[in-house]
Amino acid sequence: MIVIGEKINGTRKAVGEALRARDAAFVAALAREQAEAGSAYLDVNAGTAPNREPEDLVWLVRTTQEACELPLCLDSANPEALSAALEVVVKTPIINSVSCESSRIEGILPLALKYRTGLILLPLGGEKGIPATSEERLELIDTLVGLAKKGGLEEGMLYVDPLITAISTGKDNALVALRTIRLVRERYPEANITCGLSNISFGMPLRPVINRTFASMAVEAGLNSAIMDPNDRELMATMLAARMLAGLDRNCMEFNRAFRAGRIGPPKNL
Amino acid sequence: MIVIGEKINGTRKAVGEALRARDAAFVAALAREQAEAGSAYLDVNAGTAPNREPEDLVWLVRTTQEACELPLCLDSANPEALSAALEVVVKTPIINSVSCESSRIEGILPLALKYRTGLILLPLGGEKGIPATSEERLELIDTLVGLAKKGGLEEGMLYVDPLITAISTGKDNALVALRTIRLVRERYPEANITCGLSNISFGMPLRPVINRTFASMAVEAGLNSAIMDPNDRELMATMLAARMLAGLDRNCMEFNRAFRAGRIGPPKNL
Repeated sequence: MIVIGEKINGTRKAVGEALRARDAAFVAALAREQAEAGSAYLDVNAGTAPNREPEDLVWLVRTTQEACELPLCLDSANPEALSAALEVVVKTPIINSVSCESSRIEGILPLALKYRTGLILLPLGGEKGIPATSEERLELIDTLVGLAKKGGLEEGMLYVDPLITAISTGKDNALVALRTIRLVRERYPEANITCGLSNISFGMPLRPVINRTFASMAVEAGLNSAIMDPNDRELMATMLAARMLAGLDRNCMEFNRAFRAGRIGPPKNL
Repeated sequence: MIVIGEKINGTRKAVGEALRARDAAFVAALAREQAEAGSAYLDVNAGTAPNREPEDLVWLVRTTQEACELPLCLDSANPEALSAALEVVVKTPIINSVSCESSRIEGILPLALKYRTGLILLPLGGEKGIPATSEERLELIDTLVGLAKKGGLEEGMLYVDPLITAISTGKDNALVALRTIRLVRERYPEANITCGLSNISFGMPLRPVINRTFASMAVEAGLNSAIMDPNDRELMATMLAARMLAGLDRNCMEFNRAFRAGRIGPPKNL
C-alpha cells in the first residue's frame, strides 16, 4: 500500500497559519509523524494565491525535506509553483495532478515529462464534468496514459485516480468507482491506482466508518495507494487487513509486522 | 441485511451454565438485546450431549420465544433435537444446517422439507474435506440447492454458506470465499448468502478489524446475511455502510435510520 500522507496542506487552517508564519517546526512535526506512521510519500499543498504559491510551495518542500527523507507529492494546479518546486526536490516526486483539461495538459504534463516524475491522472476534462460511467472515465484515462507513455513515463510511474463521488448524491457512486478501479487494474496492470477516500462519505454521519468500508472494497478491486491521513490508525489497520485479505500479504507478514511495531492496534505507548 | 444473532449458544460458557441451571432470565436478556440491535433471526444452539440435546433445545426455543417475537435459527446436527424443536417453534425457522454428508442429507434435509423451513446449506461432505476452490464448492451447492428445490423449498428460503477459512492458513482464503459468493449470487439470484464472519481472522491479532474488512468485501460480492453478534456496534455499522456502498440502500435511508435510532454510532444513552 503506497500511502500518500495528506496533512501538509495549506487549505487546512492550522497548516495555512504555519505556512504564513514560516513555522518550520510545525510543518516538520507533521512530516515526521506521517513518516513514522508508514507513509511512502508526503503530499505538499500550499493552497495560496497564484502569485504567492511558488514561494510558499518551495518553502513547504524544503521544510518537509529537512524533516524527513520521504519523497514528495507536489499538489498544485499552478505550473509556476510546480516548476519552482521541481527545482528543489531531492527525490523523484509525484505530481498531483494532470487531467484532460487543456490547461493541465499544456501546463503540467510537460513538467512531469521533463523531470520524469510520478504523475496522478484524473479522468476529468471531457465535456461532461465528472463522467457518470466507468467506461467514460476509462476513455479519459486511456488518453492520459497514452500521452504520458508517449512522453516517456513508464506505467509504474502513473497513479490513476478513479474519482470518488459522494454516496449521498447517488446510490451507485461507490460501484462506479469500484468498477473503474477493476477496469484500470485489468487494462494497466503496472499502473498504481490511488484516490482520496473521504469524498465517498461527504454529507453523511459516521464518515470514518464509511471511509473504511469503502477502502476495504477498493483494495479488493485493485486500489494500491491512497491519499490519506496515515495517523488514522483505524484506517491504516483496515488498509493492511484489506491487502492481506486480497491475497497480497503472504504469511500475513506485512500485517503482523505493523501490529508488532505498534503502527496498528492499540498504541504501544499507552 | 438479514442478521442472525449468534449469542444463544450453549457452547459459550455463560450460556451453557444458564442452560444447565434453567436460568430463563439470562437467556431472555440475550434474546432481547439481540432483538433490539436489529436481528432478523436468533440462532439457538444447545451444544449439549445428544441424549440431553432435545430437551435442552426445546427449553432454549421456548425461553427465547417468550422473550421476543423473532423467528429462530435452529442450530443442531441432531435430528431428534431438531424434530423436538420444530414441534414447538411459533414462527417459520431456519435450520442450521445441511451439507452433502449423508447423515445430514438423510437426517436433516427431510425435516426442512417436511416443515418447509429456511435452510442453511454448507458445501461440505465431498471426498476432500473443505473444497479448496470456488468451483468445487459451487458443485456441492448445486447438489444441495437441487435437492432442496426438488423437495419443495423455494430459492428464497435457502441460505448458502460459502465457507470461510482462516486467512492465517492461506493467503487466498478470503478470495476463494468472495469468489464463491459471486458465483452463487450470479447462479441463484433469489438465494440468501450467509456465513459466520469470524473464522476469517482465526489466529490473527486485531480480529475485529479483519472481520469488518472482510465483511465489507463480502457484502459487495453479494453476501446479504450473517451469523454474528448484533451488539457489535462497529460490525453492524460496517454492514450497513457496506450495503449502502453496494448500491442497496436508496437515499442512504437504512443507514441514516439506524444512526438516528442509535443502533450504530455512539450509543444514545452515553
